[in-house]
Amino acid sequence: MKKLFLASFILFAFSSIATAQQLKSPQGEFEMNFSLTSDGTPTYSLKYKNKEVVKTSKLGLELKNDKKSLLNDFTIVDSKTATFDETWKPVWGEVAQIRNHYNELAVTLNQKGTDRKIVIRFRLFDDGLGFRYEFPSQKNLVYFVIKEERTQFAMAGNHTAHWISGDYDTQEYDYTTSKLSEIRNLSSKARSENASQEGFSDTGVQTSLMMKSNDGIYINLHEAALINYSCMNLNLDDKKMIFESHLTPDAKGDKGYIQAPSTSPWRTVIVSDDAREILDSKMTLNLNDPCKIEDTSWIKPVKYVGVWWEMITNKSTWSYTNDFPAIQLGITDYSKAKPNGTHGANTAHVKEYIDFASKHGFDGVLVEGWNQGWEDWFGHAKDYVFDFVTPYPDFDVKDLHEYAKSKGVKMIMHHETSGSTRNYERHLDKAFKFMNDNGYEAVKTGYVGPILPVGEHHYSQSIINHYQYVIEKAVDYKIMVNAHEAVRPTGICRTYPNMIGNEAARGTEFQAFGGSKPNHVTILPFTRLIGGPMDYTPGIFEMNIQKFSPTNTSKVNSTLANQLALYVTMYSPLQMAADLIENYNQFPDAFQFIKDVAVDWSESKYLEAEPGDYITVARKAKGTNNWFIGNVNGETPRTSNITLNFLEKGKKYTATIYADAKDAHYKTNPQAYTIRKITVTSKTKLSQLSASGGGYAISIVENK
Amino acid sequence: MKKLFLASFILFAFSSIATAQQLKSPQGEFEMNFSLTSDGTPTYSLKYKNKEVVKTSKLGLELKNDKKSLLNDFTIVDSKTATFDETWKPVWGEVAQIRNHYNELAVTLNQKGTDRKIVIRFRLFDDGLGFRYEFPSQKNLVYFVIKEERTQFAMAGNHTAHWISGDYDTQEYDYTTSKLSEIRNLSSKARSENASQEGFSDTGVQTSLMMKSNDGIYINLHEAALINYSCMNLNLDDKKMIFESHLTPDAKGDKGYIQAPSTSPWRTVIVSDDAREILDSKMTLNLNDPCKIEDTSWIKPVKYVGVWWEMITNKSTWSYTNDFPAIQLGITDYSKAKPNGTHGANTAHVKEYIDFASKHGFDGVLVEGWNQGWEDWFGHAKDYVFDFVTPYPDFDVKDLHEYAKSKGVKMIMHHETSGSTRNYERHLDKAFKFMNDNGYEAVKTGYVGPILPVGEHHYSQSIINHYQYVIEKAVDYKIMVNAHEAVRPTGICRTYPNMIGNEAARGTEFQAFGGSKPNHVTILPFTRLIGGPMDYTPGIFEMNIQKFSPTNTSKVNSTLANQLALYVTMYSPLQMAADLIENYNQFPDAFQFIKDVAVDWSESKYLEAEPGDYITVARKAKGTNNWFIGNVNGETPRTSNITLNFLEKGKKYTATIYADAKDAHYKTNPQAYTIRKITVTSKTKLSQLSASGGGYAISIVENK
Repeated sequence: MKKLFLASFILFAFSSIATAQQLKSPQGEFEMNFSLTSDGTPTYSLKYKNKEVVKTSKLGLELKNDKKSLLNDFTIVDSKTATFDETWKPVWGEVAQIRNHYNELAVTLNQKGTDRKIVIRFRLFDDGLGFRYEFPSQKNLVYFVIKEERTQFAMAGNHTAHWISGDYDTQEYDYTTSKLSEIRNLSSKARSENASQEGFSDTGVQTSLMMKSNDGIYINLHEAALINYSCMNLNLDDKKMIFESHLTPDAKGDKGYIQAPSTSPWRTVIVSDDAREILDSKMTLNLNDPCKIEDTSWIKPVKYVGVWWEMITNKSTWSYTNDFPAIQLGITDYSKAKPNGTHGANTAHVKEYIDFASKHGFDGVLVEGWNQGWEDWFGHAKDYVFDFVTPYPDFDVKDLHEYAKSKGVKMIMHHETSGSTRNYERHLDKAFKFMNDNGYEAVKTGYVGPILPVGEHHYSQSIINHYQYVIEKAVDYKIMVNAHEAVRPTGICRTYPNMIGNEAARGTEFQAFGGSKPNHVTILPFTRLIGGPMDYTPGIFEMNIQKFSPTNTSKVNSTLANQLALYVTMYSPLQMAADLIENYNQFPDAFQFIKDVAVDWSESKYLEAEPGDYITVARKAKGTNNWFIGNVNGETPRTSNITLNFLEKGKKYTATIYADAKDAHYKTNPQAYTIRKITVTSKTKLSQLSASGGGYAISIVENK
Repeated sequence: MKKLFLASFILFAFSSIATAQQLKSPQGEFEMNFSLTSDGTPTYSLKYKNKEVVKTSKLGLELKNDKKSLLNDFTIVDSKTATFDETWKPVWGEVAQIRNHYNELAVTLNQKGTDRKIVIRFRLFDDGLGFRYEFPSQKNLVYFVIKEERTQFAMAGNHTAHWISGDYDTQEYDYTTSKLSEIRNLSSKARSENASQEGFSDTGVQTSLMMKSNDGIYINLHEAALINYSCMNLNLDDKKMIFESHLTPDAKGDKGYIQAPSTSPWRTVIVSDDAREILDSKMTLNLNDPCKIEDTSWIKPVKYVGVWWEMITNKSTWSYTNDFPAIQLGITDYSKAKPNGTHGANTAHVKEYIDFASKHGFDGVLVEGWNQGWEDWFGHAKDYVFDFVTPYPDFDVKDLHEYAKSKGVKMIMHHETSGSTRNYERHLDKAFKFMNDNGYEAVKTGYVGPILPVGEHHYSQSIINHYQYVIEKAVDYKIMVNAHEAVRPTGICRTYPNMIGNEAARGTEFQAFGGSKPNHVTILPFTRLIGGPMDYTPGIFEMNIQKFSPTNTSKVNSTLANQLALYVTMYSPLQMAADLIENYNQFPDAFQFIKDVAVDWSESKYLEAEPGDYITVARKAKGTNNWFIGNVNGETPRTSNITLNFLEKGKKYTATIYADAKDAHYKTNPQAYTIRKITVTSKTKLSQLSASGGGYAISIVENK
């Protein structure tokens, strides 16, 4: 646990109980008003710089088999305000220290007739509002089932939103940018096919939802600390422009089994008139509990390569043989099977990756498809799909362990579950023990396809609990977890920093499945990354996949320079260099940036930002004086103008600038880049053209 | 694995493929005919002694999202017959050796248009028919989902049946005896309240279903080897008197996820014109795989007492305190809680049971309510309900372990899961390790209340797999399992003899919940016990529960002599003496029978039997020359006439007869019994009156 630098918590108890309460943020820019309507319905509203951001919005929960629910007939029985201010040090992060500073209002409500109490706790920061429901221990409210949470976010206008369609089983849609009023008509087009998906409404969207008002206010809606609760979507009433919470149901259609005392996750509204401040917000982390892991010395940022992109692009296969229509683990005899000749995870090939990682200073090598069962791994609702400890005949665990060790490289484990959560839990202890025994310190997990138990969803309460179970079990074995297809993060990495990565959005793999929009990476930091880092797997140098995988006609909608910038713009303590070795070997000068770039930072400065258009950020590598800058650009070519005033005054640095060539374009000329070195100081101003789907990356090293 | 005494397997392959096939039982009393209808639907029929038992009945499966299903358009492509004869030794059982002798017909069918193959395998024994579906490995049938199994059992008349209503979540109904045509009208009355229940039809019934035709043929329908498949109910077309299989659905309403190669469980039809032969049938065991446990030396029959009846009757409580509305394991602090003063599982009280067990030669002491969490254990869909390793403050595991060891008694573990199967699996390894560490060799498991994951059922495929997972995991720790509220057994104890007990029917506890019908125990051996032994927990001496638990007005509908007889008539290698110590101390002469009776047998002779009316059985204790006889009687008083011709000729024995007194009656005078000793030989004939709800028990010891 990190020490608190400065912590103060001042509590004020009011004796007078009014029906309305006001709360202001520490610097006074935000004002939150809480009140009860005449029928005792709790409501809140939020102003930023005297502009209405959230109009009066209802709060409450609809319960199953409960006439009154927790919706109205409330009176205020207690109201407490407090101020909190502390600075804490994350184990890894965009910055070395984070200030957690807010004013708090906790309103205790009592429901007439039922004598049930709930607390609604508001925390108002200088970057926005968080609030949650709390269910204290009491006689009349012990166990209950949520039919639906009825939390509203009433918008003040027909904002522009960057949204993906609400879904119980996938987050991997491309973003659509539209007015709120246009969501309904664009919804079906926005729902591309996925291995698992279930929508619920034409105006349903996911969080984190990024919006911009006509008068230039940026508004982000999300949640924080999603623990033992169902994940929230938002459903829009597009007449009134009111979003309402829509929780992910379980197999019976229920939205949550609650036992008091407990709390809901925080509902968050991050607001600014400067888009850079949205990216800079630490509110989501601050609303999570402090680190619960006593000794965090084993948790380390990781830069890695791996046997992955070749399967994603169909160049090689996860499977070992084509002999069997279906696999029965422990019964199917692979030793007598005819190898299909395309199995990527073979010892000799993995050694090439270990050599490459060692030569270029990467920490780890991920290998997918190493274990038996990939021949029918997906789409069959197969319970016993993997055992996570039995390799294919051509993958020598011990040999590779020794070889990697001798080369100073760590193997990274892969646990695809195919959504069969019970099977994974059954094998978890043995699988983690196997990792400990064979030198694996991190695991990439996967949940492709519909969830087992049948009827459950990727984001229902019970499965949220599964992901959490895996993270906490991993702590016992000192294992870092990078979960793919799991629920979108909500800042839980503050509490469990062994969760060093998540996918939970449309990652680079979709560039091999038909492509993502060129401005995708200018939106993700405003949406998906609000909850925590993403294992986006950047670094693709060969945009024409067909060159090495003839059957795959998909193009990567990005310039090479944009791919380099992602290591800085897409913050993550876990970064992959995802492309094939042979593609990196073609561009050793550009590859140098991936080798050099840090994965842990002491400072981060968002220099330019507009969701959907561009992001420019500078980050200082932890424990050094070196800086790295990344700029990603959307579809329209643009000149980025930045000042390096964050550099130490009076010092000279050498900047290596990896930029789009003048004729670069994500579609027609993605590999055209330039590299130049210049001397810079804190007074240097840079002007740099970024192509369509392009960007630039800069490494800045102090001259000594 | 037990050695085979005699095994022969002769295979005949026919080259000529007819559209009809006939199979006869080894002794020729049964004739099974298989044929295809004109549209290629497979059918079978069964005759016994030239009487129609099953009229022409359809076979097949309806598949989900599959137009053709596996119902018709079949042609016979292969047909093989074989004869099998072996004798095997069960680890424990009613007899020391079991003959497995049948003629087999395996018909391979190919479906036109789809080119899919299934095999229907028939085994005809001298006591009935077993058949199953087999799905061989093939290209066109790999994964499929069962919408419904369409196996018919067309009855030849309006039989009398002993039935309980079909249900997905309980087997604990009292039996109703009626004509098949009367089931519909009696159905709702037959469905008493249960902690978990979900019916599906007014003519739905459970197996094992016991019937008797008007011309005196006894017919029993059940299943054998229920592994990785949903449990079968039967739904009656009461116009045509055709039963059809109705499988237990999962949370989505589907009936089974199948991957070829695999097989269905066996569907069984046990038939005789002598009711005793139904009880004597070993067909269900024979249709299961041989023992899969290499070393079975640790599996031993158990006679036990325990802290149980006092909670069932409300004399004491499982819970420790009344302080908390709800428990959070690991957070709720029991050390500061006020004890409720009624907690049964306290160290001092358990020691009384250990002393009692030691004094009277019992093997084990079961203690329920020893572990934290019982305050809100049931009915809240609570996920983390127990951890199975943390005792209440007043239960000293180490002390009791040492104390029991010093007294030569084994503690028996209790794992109530409250139906929260994921939670149980998460803790299973630690819980079993805890048992190993503390001298527990057997565990009673429980599944009270609706199943978690939500939407699943006690008898759906996924939960069937859970029970099997627990049994197989227990083998790793050399632990014997006695599962309550789990699926009704289907002979799997042959394969996994560590499954020494099951409840899976209305047990003695219901005598404290309002009572069971007095003839209940004359039906159970014809129904529930067809699949394997039951932990019925007999031995209640105080029928007026109110005497020791003032708030409980339920009466035990049985005489004391009937309770003694149950140790012989309700075969089980695990037998409890369920009553309170003080109640046994009142009747030391009757208690002697419970002390003497064996729990493992070399021979069993069913002397008299009529389902619903009476059962008389004599069993020879394994490894001795001693015999025990039990007779249970239904509502009508009756004189039982038996001959002891199973005794060794020329030898003299002393028989101690525990019988109903002349004025005994389950309702008005249940504790009236007589004990007399007489000398008997193989020529002795006994005539003994059994009261209403009564019976008798005899121990026979060779004079030396």
